[in-house]
Amino acid sequence: MAQKQKIINDPVYGFITINHPLLFSIISHPYYQRLRRIHQMALAYLVYPGAVHTRLLHSLGAYHLMCNAVNELRAKGVYITPEEEMAAKAGILLHDVGHGPFSHALESQLLQGVHHEDISLMIMKIMNTQLGGQLQMAIDIFTNNYPKKFLHQLISGQLDVDRMDYLTRDSFFTGVSEGVIGYDRILKMLTVHNGELMVEEKGIYSIEKFLVARRQMYWQVYLHKTVLSAEKMLVNLLQRVRDLIAQGATDLHTHCGIDFFLFNFDGVMNLDTLDKFCKLDDGDLLVAVKKWGTHTDMVLQTLANRLLNRQLLKINIQSDPFEADFVAHKLQAAATQLGISLEEAGYFVFAGEADNTMYTTNKEGINILFKDGSVKDITAIDDPLINQTISAPIKKFFVCYL
Amino acid sequence: MAQKQKIINDPVYGFITINHPLLFSIISHPYYQRLRRIHQMALAYLVYPGAVHTRLLHSLGAYHLMCNAVNELRAKGVYITPEEEMAAKAGILLHDVGHGPFSHALESQLLQGVHHEDISLMIMKIMNTQLGGQLQMAIDIFTNNYPKKFLHQLISGQLDVDRMDYLTRDSFFTGVSEGVIGYDRILKMLTVHNGELMVEEKGIYSIEKFLVARRQMYWQVYLHKTVLSAEKMLVNLLQRVRDLIAQGATDLHTHCGIDFFLFNFDGVMNLDTLDKFCKLDDGDLLVAVKKWGTHTDMVLQTLANRLLNRQLLKINIQSDPFEADFVAHKLQAAATQLGISLEEAGYFVFAGEADNTMYTTNKEGINILFKDGSVKDITAIDDPLINQTISAPIKKFFVCYL
Amino acid sequence: MAQKQKIINDPVYGFITINHPLLFSIISHPYYQRLRRIHQMALAYLVYPGAVHTRLLHSLGAYHLMCNAVNELRAKGVYITPEEEMAAKAGILLHDVGHGPFSHALESQLLQGVHHEDISLMIMKIMNTQLGGQLQMAIDIFTNNYPKKFLHQLISGQLDVDRMDYLTRDSFFTGVSEGVIGYDRILKMLTVHNGELMVEEKGIYSIEKFLVARRQMYWQVYLHKTVLSAEKMLVNLLQRVRDLIAQGATDLHTHCGIDFFLFNFDGVMNLDTLDKFCKLDDGDLLVAVKKWGTHTDMVLQTLANRLLNRQLLKINIQSDPFEADFVAHKLQAAATQLGISLEEAGYFVFAGEADNTMYTTNKEGINILFKDGSVKDITAIDDPLINQTISAPIKKFFVCYL
Amino acid sequence: MAQKQKIINDPVYGFITINHPLLFSIISHPYYQRLRRIHQMALAYLVYPGAVHTRLLHSLGAYHLMCNAVNELRAKGVYITPEEEMAAKAGILLHDVGHGPFSHALESQLLQGVHHEDISLMIMKIMNTQLGGQLQMAIDIFTNNYPKKFLHQLISGQLDVDRMDYLTRDSFFTGVSEGVIGYDRILKMLTVHNGELMVEEKGIYSIEKFLVARRQMYWQVYLHKTVLSAEKMLVNLLQRVRDLIAQGATDLHTHCGIDFFLFNFDGVMNLDTLDKFCKLDDGDLLVAVKKWGTHTDMVLQTLANRLLNRQLLKINIQSDPFEADFVAHKLQAAATQLGISLEEAGYFVFAGEADNTMYTTNKEGINILFKDGSVKDITAIDDPLINQTISAPIKKFFVCYL
Repeated sequence: MAQKQKIINDPVYGFITINHPLLFSIISHPYYQRLRRIHQMALAYLVYPGAVHTRLLHSLGAYHLMCNAVNELRAKGVYITPEEEMAAKAGILLHDVGHGPFSHALESQLLQGVHHEDISLMIMKIMNTQLGGQLQMAIDIFTNNYPKKFLHQLISGQLDVDRMDYLTRDSFFTGVSEGVIGYDRILKMLTVHNGELMVEEKGIYSIEKFLVARRQMYWQVYLHKTVLSAEKMLVNLLQRVRDLIAQGATDLHTHCGIDFFLFNFDGVMNLDTLDKFCKLDDGDLLVAVKKWGTHTDMVLQTLANRLLNRQLLKINIQSDPFEADFVAHKLQAAATQLGISLEEAGYFVFAGEADNTMYTTNKEGINILFKDGSVKDITAIDDPLINQTISAPIKKFFVCYL
Repeated sequence: MAQKQKIINDPVYGFITINHPLLFSIISHPYYQRLRRIHQMALAYLVYPGAVHTRLLHSLGAYHLMCNAVNELRAKGVYITPEEEMAAKAGILLHDVGHGPFSHALESQLLQGVHHEDISLMIMKIMNTQLGGQLQMAIDIFTNNYPKKFLHQLISGQLDVDRMDYLTRDSFFTGVSEGVIGYDRILKMLTVHNGELMVEEKGIYSIEKFLVARRQMYWQVYLHKTVLSAEKMLVNLLQRVRDLIAQGATDLHTHCGIDFFLFNFDGVMNLDTLDKFCKLDDGDLLVAVKKWGTHTDMVLQTLANRLLNRQLLKINIQSDPFEADFVAHKLQAAATQLGISLEEAGYFVFAGEADNTMYTTNKEGINILFKDGSVKDITAIDDPLINQTISAPIKKFFVCYL
Repeated sequence: MAQKQKIINDPVYGFITINHPLLFSIISHPYYQRLRRIHQMALAYLVYPGAVHTRLLHSLGAYHLMCNAVNELRAKGVYITPEEEMAAKAGILLHDVGHGPFSHALESQLLQGVHHEDISLMIMKIMNTQLGGQLQMAIDIFTNNYPKKFLHQLISGQLDVDRMDYLTRDSFFTGVSEGVIGYDRILKMLTVHNGELMVEEKGIYSIEKFLVARRQMYWQVYLHKTVLSAEKMLVNLLQRVRDLIAQGATDLHTHCGIDFFLFNFDGVMNLDTLDKFCKLDDGDLLVAVKKWGTHTDMVLQTLANRLLNRQLLKINIQSDPFEADFVAHKLQAAATQLGISLEEAGYFVFAGEADNTMYTTNKEGINILFKDGSVKDITAIDDPLINQTISAPIKKFFVCYL
Repeated sequence: MAQKQKIINDPVYGFITINHPLLFSIISHPYYQRLRRIHQMALAYLVYPGAVHTRLLHSLGAYHLMCNAVNELRAKGVYITPEEEMAAKAGILLHDVGHGPFSHALESQLLQGVHHEDISLMIMKIMNTQLGGQLQMAIDIFTNNYPKKFLHQLISGQLDVDRMDYLTRDSFFTGVSEGVIGYDRILKMLTVHNGELMVEEKGIYSIEKFLVARRQMYWQVYLHKTVLSAEKMLVNLLQRVRDLIAQGATDLHTHCGIDFFLFNFDGVMNLDTLDKFCKLDDGDLLVAVKKWGTHTDMVLQTLANRLLNRQLLKINIQSDPFEADFVAHKLQAAATQLGISLEEAGYFVFAGEADNTMYTTNKEGINILFKDGSVKDITAIDDPLINQTISAPIKKFFVCYL
């Protein structure tokens, strides 16, 4: 009479229930299980020591919110078939499955720009074949080719369960209470109108809260200056490795999975290279960093050991660009201090811009459904806080130095 | 006027304050920073996906409770000098610094029985030399050679801040609410009498709660049958590697830090070997497991891939030993299924006992100070719940199989 | 398309959803709304200042857990019709509707022993008539005359949603973390076997936790000695009023709703007296106490003002009866101090027993369903903690004095 | 050696410690204890059923935050004498002691405009006399006549512990998570510069969060339209009573403490009238409302019973004034429905404005202390969110009707 059911403890939501063979198939797949070994927040744990939660847990959390969202919408009379329900759940479980370890650094330095979203889709297609087509509707929803647009919007939109979970979860594990959103209230305010996901009028303050919390998380966590410094150091470290290889160095092998991507990857993802990619996890990069910490190249060694032992580059951050003089002065100081060339000093001293483009993609807006039946985009609402939060340029300038 | 102060976000306690140069020296030491890369709960995250918190965070948490304990005791008139305060804080920060990755498996298979507590002391002594003797009092307290016994008892006793933090923290990250103890209330109930740490009479119910919560954590988390299965698999995996090496295999190098302990370690910890030990972290073992997943030895390969992809051994658990017949039958089945010898099947099918000896060492008891000035050990209290919880044998039998 | 739905904020569970006309009818009834004006925990707020939550909120909370329980059971294949679902929800909303202000004191002193459970049933019957019989099934379930016994057991049993809510809620509002139970986990462990409510085998530790938490709440909260002192003072205060009336006093009218029950009630509850009862709330008693604080009778005035201003009687509590000498000595001292007779001093100095009979009625036991299909009562489980918790006599002796 | 110490459980902060004879004297005073019988949030519990916490608990909570604030400031080297510490704690305990039941309605209708802050000061002076001058410094701080301005600012300023507690506490008890502020982080960001309370530069995001949370609480809770409706009904109810008395009615006595203020109070607060005021609590008004529910005047009876049974007036709310036609139409409808005159219908149908002036008094601004030593008011910070939150007009128009 009863179907197989598994309950997973989650410190954020209490219990997450898995109760369908398709879901079990996805979760037990090695490509999914590897998400256990990849930090959701990359190097943020160097600032927020509790932020070591994994991409697997985020995926399960977003799935849990999807379960709740489906229940709430159905209770309001929105028609969702059992197949659609399962497809939406499968889709959200797999929405981030293409992430690799320290994605930001990895994609720019080792993957030649192949984007994690494309990899997610490739993995979904592979699994779909393995599962005899059971994931086809999930793929259609994920790629926004399914007629009921709101299902796609729940997975990927300005107010999707992905964001609701990561803001909630990252806030929970960092201990930054400013990022708490009222996810349960937002879910209760969702509705569907003309096939599109909407927020009921009385949910405006919850949306306001959501947008402000997101903004707080950008500046306090995701773009926290020390986190930024650590991530830039990792990028530069990998850049140095590639530069040395380009110069002919032969002693940079790590004997781990990333060697392929350092030495042999040509930018083409096929079944074979994807499988290699799916064997990578945080451990490979951390072991490599430890190894490079004993390399004879002073730049490489210093970056590696400093990253490992949390002796991060100093970083200043402000609303305007930094003076060229300031950067030049720091460059000279670094060259002198480490006994390296000015060019090499550029691995330690550099200026740049931080913005939130990695977090706000051009997902569609948030629609509000008013009691009189009219629909407005959130940016058209006469709410000064919302307008400012949305329109405020989230961009700052930084400079790192020794 | 103001001294340097750093605030660390902790999802459990909110904020942890570091405000003394000695504490900064300890925390920034590479031997301490490596605790960022070691899971507090080893493989428990295979069952509780949120349980990926690190030994560094536990150490900071225990330190935070020590800060509170010192404040509470002083408010009750207990005299603690600034030097003693700093020594107690340094001692608790370092109490677990000798842990390696997956300590249980590591110590039994690779360290030839060298215990993490001995390593902690060695590291403290090395740091003490580096810091010009500033850690001497901390070492005296840690080794219980300091006259004010209660300071040692706060670090290492039946009711120390170590336990208070790990029960609280493990409960928090696993999401197992049954392990919640009222640590803040317990701290308020602490007092000192004749130089010994005591609990005030009115704190008895809090102690009862503490003991019951600890018991719940044993069975629901630390000795959870699936966690047990995973840990035994890791032990067997390392055993298999060692057995193959003993048989002359030469293709088991991982090119990571554990190679030294696999091939060269003679059981003697000196400055050099300790330094090698202090370079290990979870990443080394996980990378090794991945590597061994492609080895030609069927036993090794199978154990490695199953552990990696969470295809764990089945496990039964009960109060009585299992029938020999049952085990023999399962052995035979495994041999047949994998096409291996009966002896090799023993890596997959085996019986054993689980008890809590790894959690309850012979630390001294808990003393209750009554209003009339008398002192009783907790086991002498007429409280049926406490007696049962303490005296109940915590031991069960298990059998793992394919 | 969507039905009317109302969301109520609850600090404990987040949101409670009301979504059926029958539920709206119940909740908007004046007999139900009066529960807003009655403290769930009577005078416990004199010790736990946060414990001022109302019987209405507890009722809504228990209803919320019932909603969850129905969902969980259905997900396991238990068949529950929409009518049964609504009857169970109506039943739990009304299970405590018969409580008056400070029930313990009220029932013993003013209601001549009419019990709140009988009043609940009377109110349900009146509402049933008003609602054209819509509550008949709820009444059948409440009185255990409905075939599916598990529905009754969810409302009134050793592990009902009533208890789950009040332990959770009282723990929340008092701030006594020791009373936290894992209600969400318990709900997930519930099942139905042969028409009876059962707990799955793997839920044993949750039940253990539940029983221990309940025990902790008895001693730390419900039978906290200062709470006990306050409640006994209120009983004695009302007793004094009745004694003075019996002696012919004519100046004790309060001009509030309790006058009828002080002067005219003959112990018979009919439509008229029940309506008078349903107009009472905490305000009536508190106004009466204030009024009596200016009465000329020294005993009455002193009891009233002391209760009002939290100058409570001292209280000792222990496992054995108190010596008669001790009580006699305190009686004499009180008579001297207040200038009253020894008999009158008995309002301030008295011994008694406290036990948990007001909390553990003879509700049926908790059944555990084992994986092999066998069923055992919880008391037959070989778990020392459970046995001790259940069998331990919860009875203590107290003496109050000035 | 140890001083007397009392620990109070608080669901919000865990434990509140009272450890000085002066504090015990204040808390045990009947004028303070009466705050146990006055809801912090007046009628808001009709919308948020958990919001029944008392003014006493808020007072204790604000005191707790003051204890923390003093500790934090001292840890940063700010000099605070033990006398100043005690005065600040006494001052915050008493800052709201002048509140009566349902202050908003009471002050406008029964107290002839005597303001609760003036009453607080009067009570402090009375207690000061009773305590032999021990409260003099507290009074000086409260009235901002003490040289160290930051002590006054902690009690009464834009960022005082009063606000920090009530936002935190009201958010907790209503269950409106949008009102959560990071009070612990704000406290850690406080500092003193030139004798004034400041926020460190790195605390700007916490202040942003604080301001947004406050805004959310205005609209979701304090000025929630249904709360507004209930409070306006209570004001109109008392207005009707006064109008009837003015017309010569003689049957409106309640035999409770408010009779004096209905019939005899001349607007002068002296020792005697203040004592009468200090005997009032929520119970008096609720009993009065019940009594008036049986009065023959249709307007009075209807208002009373509707308020009692939560049959509140409908209310519309918007950014612009309502059309006079709409109000006129509703007035006519109410007169017809209840069979009363158009003038009498004005008790049920009326328009008005709601703004936050009752919450934002002209307390001084929030100063930010930058790392370079400069000081800026928060309104001068280049942060669009802060500017909008502060400058946005918080004013809306409402109309109530049957």
